[in-house]
Amino acid sequence: MVVIDPLRIVLVTPRNPLNIGAVARAMSNFGFTQLRLVNPYDVAFKEARSAVNAHYVLENAEIFATVAEAVADCGLVTGTTSVGHRDLHLPLYRLEPAGEIIRENLSAEKPVALLFGSEKFGLSNEDMSHCHWLLRIPSREEHGSINLGQAVAICLYELRRSSQAAAQRFAPAPTASAEELERITSLLLHLLNHSGYLNPTTAESSELKIRRLVRRLGLPATDAVTWLGIFRQILWKLGKTESP
Amino acid sequence: MVVIDPLRIVLVTPRNPLNIGAVARAMSNFGFTQLRLVNPYDVAFKEARSAVNAHYVLENAEIFATVAEAVADCGLVTGTTSVGHRDLHLPLYRLEPAGEIIRENLSAEKPVALLFGSEKFGLSNEDMSHCHWLLRIPSREEHGSINLGQAVAICLYELRRSSQAAAQRFAPAPTASAEELERITSLLLHLLNHSGYLNPTTAESSELKIRRLVRRLGLPATDAVTWLGIFRQILWKLGKTESP
Repeated sequence: MVVIDPLRIVLVTPRNPLNIGAVARAMSNFGFTQLRLVNPYDVAFKEARSAVNAHYVLENAEIFATVAEAVADCGLVTGTTSVGHRDLHLPLYRLEPAGEIIRENLSAEKPVALLFGSEKFGLSNEDMSHCHWLLRIPSREEHGSINLGQAVAICLYELRRSSQAAAQRFAPAPTASAEELERITSLLLHLLNHSGYLNPTTAESSELKIRRLVRRLGLPATDAVTWLGIFRQILWKLGKTESP
Repeated sequence: MVVIDPLRIVLVTPRNPLNIGAVARAMSNFGFTQLRLVNPYDVAFKEARSAVNAHYVLENAEIFATVAEAVADCGLVTGTTSVGHRDLHLPLYRLEPAGEIIRENLSAEKPVALLFGSEKFGLSNEDMSHCHWLLRIPSREEHGSINLGQAVAICLYELRRSSQAAAQRFAPAPTASAEELERITSLLLHLLNHSGYLNPTTAESSELKIRRLVRRLGLPATDAVTWLGIFRQILWKLGKTESP
């Protein structure tokens, strides 16, 4: 079988099977399959209950003794860190540009590795020395440490997000025509007269108020018939029929 | 105290305190503070151990009996769904454009509500009927259901991501000058001669090969001195000094 998934998610010394399961679930959500674990703390991780619908990811996960072995076949090796300062001796990108660079490299000949450190300590300097560069999810400096499963989910979302999709907004729904608005206005006036809401002595200025009130609704064209039906039904119940 | 955080994260009938804690942690990571719960299953959620460094979010969380009450003060009410089809009777956006619309509304006078359904069933049709529109994280159709804590983390990341940041890549490191490359080439040739790597009878063509080899390295200017030092030290150890 030819593996066409060019991303290797590498968890270095993960401790909590729940987190490993959450990572597997996020990978399945976003269509990634290749999980690698370096020296996992709990070898029972394959039974992680949190891997809802993603056991196939755990069952195919590969285990390595060292970071060097886990990334040996990769052309680009990147690591994640919550540290904001630059004393890391490596280029440090925010996730947004890092995601673009990784996406560009996913079509390269060799796989791309994305490393995540342990829940408690993150990647060590030794782990990071295997990386070409590091990335940081733009969290608050005061609370930068993101849960492992959530961090992987955010990174994978960034790899799948589409800047084209960002521009796709719905056009506002077409609004009702002037004719439809006038029919609704007329019915509503009828209804307000018969229900005693309007004062007959001020009927003329009331008509203008109600007409403007209806125009301000931004009533969608597809809902005009429903509103006409509602007003007709109430008029009928009041013992009046629509004026001709 | 004036609350300046205009986003309300509303969890509707959440069941698992671990997930509620994970939501609080993600909110703290991305600088959001206003959590609301509708009819939570387990009222012990405030002790969620997964809320690392985010207990202040849980302690200030508000509890409501109904969705209507939880969103009453909001100007825009949006809901999340993993359902890909359009039988929802509401506009359905991908997260990318939805994030933009929400960001635009965060400066409006009234708060924005973002609703998440229960872990098992998501938002009900009744819950959704309180929403102006829905959003969907672009997960695989075959496995669209994302863990609650991860879904919130992804949405909050999208609200905090910056399209300006996406363009911020490091300029490639300045590479060594021709003079430095030639000094390295010269030292390396010396070293290869004295270590017996090069055959003296083909020395001339070897020199061209090694020169090209060094040029292909893309050696950063800041590392040139280190490499010169390395080669000099090895030459010294071999009992030879650098040629004049």
